[in-house]
Amino acid sequence: VTPSNASKLLARIGSGTKRIEVRTSPAGIEPYLHDEAVRSSDPAAAVLFPRSTEEVSRILKLASRFRVPVVPRGAGSGVAGSAVPGKGWIVLSLERMNRILAVDERDAVAVVEPGAITGEIRKAVEAKGLFYPPVPGSVDLCTIGGNVATNAGGLSAVKYGVTRPYVLGLEAVLAGGEVIQTGGRYLKHSTGYDLTQLIVGSEGTLAVITKIVLRLLPLPTERMTLLAPFPSLEDLTGAVLAILAERIVPPTLELVPRGAVRSVLARNPDISFPFPESEASLLIEVDGADLPSVERDVARLAPILERCGSPDPLVAFSPSQRERLWSLRKGIRDSIVACGPYVEADSVVPRSQLPELVRAGDACGARHGLETISYGHAGDGNLHTYFLKGTLLERSWKSASKKVLREYYERTVRLGGTISGEHGIGSLKRPYLPIALSGGEIQLMRGIKKAFDPYNLLNPGKLLP
Amino acid sequence: VTPSNASKLLARIGSGTKRIEVRTSPAGIEPYLHDEAVRSSDPAAAVLFPRSTEEVSRILKLASRFRVPVVPRGAGSGVAGSAVPGKGWIVLSLERMNRILAVDERDAVAVVEPGAITGEIRKAVEAKGLFYPPVPGSVDLCTIGGNVATNAGGLSAVKYGVTRPYVLGLEAVLAGGEVIQTGGRYLKHSTGYDLTQLIVGSEGTLAVITKIVLRLLPLPTERMTLLAPFPSLEDLTGAVLAILAERIVPPTLELVPRGAVRSVLARNPDISFPFPESEASLLIEVDGADLPSVERDVARLAPILERCGSPDPLVAFSPSQRERLWSLRKGIRDSIVACGPYVEADSVVPRSQLPELVRAGDACGARHGLETISYGHAGDGNLHTYFLKGTLLERSWKSASKKVLREYYERTVRLGGTISGEHGIGSLKRPYLPIALSGGEIQLMRGIKKAFDPYNLLNPGKLLP
Repeated sequence: VTPSNASKLLARIGSGTKRIEVRTSPAGIEPYLHDEAVRSSDPAAAVLFPRSTEEVSRILKLASRFRVPVVPRGAGSGVAGSAVPGKGWIVLSLERMNRILAVDERDAVAVVEPGAITGEIRKAVEAKGLFYPPVPGSVDLCTIGGNVATNAGGLSAVKYGVTRPYVLGLEAVLAGGEVIQTGGRYLKHSTGYDLTQLIVGSEGTLAVITKIVLRLLPLPTERMTLLAPFPSLEDLTGAVLAILAERIVPPTLELVPRGAVRSVLARNPDISFPFPESEASLLIEVDGADLPSVERDVARLAPILERCGSPDPLVAFSPSQRERLWSLRKGIRDSIVACGPYVEADSVVPRSQLPELVRAGDACGARHGLETISYGHAGDGNLHTYFLKGTLLERSWKSASKKVLREYYERTVRLGGTISGEHGIGSLKRPYLPIALSGGEIQLMRGIKKAFDPYNLLNPGKLLP
Repeated sequence: VTPSNASKLLARIGSGTKRIEVRTSPAGIEPYLHDEAVRSSDPAAAVLFPRSTEEVSRILKLASRFRVPVVPRGAGSGVAGSAVPGKGWIVLSLERMNRILAVDERDAVAVVEPGAITGEIRKAVEAKGLFYPPVPGSVDLCTIGGNVATNAGGLSAVKYGVTRPYVLGLEAVLAGGEVIQTGGRYLKHSTGYDLTQLIVGSEGTLAVITKIVLRLLPLPTERMTLLAPFPSLEDLTGAVLAILAERIVPPTLELVPRGAVRSVLARNPDISFPFPESEASLLIEVDGADLPSVERDVARLAPILERCGSPDPLVAFSPSQRERLWSLRKGIRDSIVACGPYVEADSVVPRSQLPELVRAGDACGARHGLETISYGHAGDGNLHTYFLKGTLLERSWKSASKKVLREYYERTVRLGGTISGEHGIGSLKRPYLPIALSGGEIQLMRGIKKAFDPYNLLNPGKLLP
C-alpha cells in the first residue's frame, strides 16, 4: 500500500454533498490502532465514520478503485487483532451506525445496525419481554457487529448457544461497494448456500456488515445463581456432565480454578470469595419462565452436586447476592492483564476433555517457566488460558510465548478441539491456524475469500495464514 | 458429458483389490433416476455403492480425472430434484454407509455415516437418554446425509430449530477426492470460515459428506398433544404469536387448514378428524423433562387458545390419543399427491405473515384455475402449497404451473420471505432463485461453488441458476 492511494480516496470522500466524518491526525487515529490485545505501531491513513449503508458503499467503492485496504471496526474490544489496521489502511469505524432499527414482538426479531452496543440491544428487547441471549464478557462495551464478525460466545452459551444461531439475516457491503441482503426475518431456509452464516465469524474479511436481523427468544424472567466448590477438576467436570445428563440445562456453567481466584484476590482486597482454597469452583446459573421451575431445577441440582463432590454449594436468590457470587468471576481477566505481559489462548475441546486441557496448559506453561492461569466456560469446553511473562527476560519471553502457544494448540487439537472457541483468529492466532485446519480447508477458505474480495482489500492478512 | 467418460471411470473402479458395488443395468439404475417429485428420463451411467470414505474418495478422483458428473444420494425422499442424476452421470448412493459410529453420552454427540436413517439415529440416541430433535416428515425413510444436504426442517422446529444447528462437524470428500474434516465434537468455535455450515444446505454441490458429528440434547420424556380449531387463519396465527409471547415454546405448531382436511377425508374414510368444518386447526405439541412442567404448559395454553378463538381444544395424553390427533396431519401430503399432477411450493415468511401467504397461494391458484391446498409449520412461517392440475388440459397446465409458481414466489418475497423453507432448490426451484436472491448473492455462490468444485462435477446444474 502506498499512502498516496489513501490520499486519493480521502480527496474524493469529502467531495459529495454529505461529508463523511474523517480523522487523519495522529491523535485522532491513535485510539483505533489497537484492540484489547494487539497494538499496531504503523499508522492507519484515516478513520472514517460512515452514518449509512450508502456511505459505507461509497467508501468501499473508492477503496476498491484505489486499492486501499479497509478494516471494519466496532468497539475494538476484541482480543485477536481482528479490528487493528495496517499501515496506510482506512479504519471503517461503525460506531455512528448504532441504531436499534426495530424490535418486532410479533415475529420476535430485532433489526440493528452493527455499531449498536450488545448490552443496549439486550435492554431494548427486554423492555418488550424479549430476550437476546448471548452475553460476551464485554457485553456493555462491545458492538453487535463485532459479535457477529467473531461469532462471539460468552456466559450463557451452554443453554442458548453463541452469536451464530441468532443471526437470521444481514445487510452487508461487498469489497466493490455492492450491497447485498442475506436471509431475512424468517426462522429457517434452504435457499442456496447460507451466506449469512458464512459472514458470521469472518472477522471483516468478506464484507462489511451494515444491518443485522436478530432472532429473539421469550424473556426468562426468573434466575438463580449457585457457586459450588470442588476438590478437583475431574469432580467439577463430572458434575457438569451429570447436570446435563439429568436434563437440567443451565445457561451458565463457569469454571473458576484456584489459580484464577488467587490472582483476583491478590489484587482486589475488596472482593470476597467464599471458597478460596477449593481446587476449582463451578458458577451455575439457572433460568426459566417461572419461579417454580427454576426452584425445581435448583432443588434437583443439590443432590447431583453432592454426589459429585460438592455437598455445600452457595445459592443466591436476590440480585445483590447473585452479584456477589459473580464478582470474582468477572474480575479474572482484568486481574491477569494487570500482571504484565502475557499471551492468551482460547481453546475449545469436547467438554469432557476440560480437565485434560487445563492440565495441558499448566504443563506447557511449566515447560517454559511461565505461570499459567486459566478459567472459562466449563459447559462448552472453552477455556481461556493465560501464559504470563512474569520475571522472564524479554528475549526469552519472545521465544517462549510463541513456543508455548504452539505446543498448547497442538495439544488442544490432539484432545479433539480447536484453537479459537469464541475470540476469533485475527492476526494473533493466524500463524497457528494450520495446526487446527488442514491445507485443504485453508485452500477452500482462500477460494471463498477470493470470491468475495478479489483484490484482498477487506482486512487483508487477518484470519487466513 | 460423453458416455465414454463414465466408461473409463467404471473400467478403473473395479480394478482395485476391493471392488466397489456397481449397477449399470437399466433395471438397476431405474430406482435412482427420481426423487419424490422429479423423474429424469435420461439414464445415468451407473450407480455406485461405496462402503467407506476411501471408496468415495477413489470414485471422486476418477470422476475428476475423466470429468464425469456425480450426484450424491441418500434415500431419494427429497422433493426438489436435488438427488436426481443427469444423462451419463454417476449416482453415488450412500446407502451402504449407514452406520451409527458412536453415541457419546458424556459429550452428548453422535457420529454417524450419511446413509443412516434419521429415525434410526433418533431411536439409537433415545436409548441412551439423548435426543436428536429434527423430525422431517419422512423421518423413517430419509437419511441424515440428505437432511444435512438440504438443511431439512420438519415438525419440531419451533422449539428446536432445523438440521443446521445440530451439525457440529463433517467429514467430506471434495470434488478432486481430497478428504477434509470440518468442525468436531466441540460446541462452538471461531476458527476461520465455518465450512461445516457452508456445506449444510449445499445439496451435494460442494462436497460429498461421509461422516457427520451431531449435537444431541437431553431427551424430553414427557409430551402432550393438543388440537385446536379456529374460525379463521388470523385467529390461528394470533394464537401462535400469543403462545410464544407468553413464553411457552412448543416443539410443534402445525397449521391444518380446511382444504387439507377435506383432501385427506375424501380419500381416507378410516381417518377421523374432530373439527372437519373449522376454517383451520392448530396441532400443538408441548414437551418437557417432567410431567408437571408439561401439564403446566397445557394448563397455560387453555386460556390463550380461548382468548384467541378456540375455547374447546382436544388434549391427548396417551400415545394412542396423540396418534389419532396426528393421523390426519400425517396423511395430508399423500392425499394431495394422489390427486394427480401438481406443483409444490415451500415458502417461508415471517410467521406473522402466514395468513397473507396462504391467501396469496389461493389467489395465485385461482388466477390460473388451479385448486390450491396448503398446510405447514405455523410456528416457523413455513407453508407447503400445492397447486393441482385437476381437469386442466396438459398444454394449459404446463404454462399455468410455471406461471403460478413464479407469481407465488414473487408474493412470498414481497411478504419478506424466501422460496424454500426446508426442501432445497434442486432442479425444480432453480429457475426461480433470482426471485429470492440478488445477482450479487448468486455471483458469490457461483464463486464459492468454483472454489470447491472447479470443474463443476458435483451435482452440476442444481441449486444455482
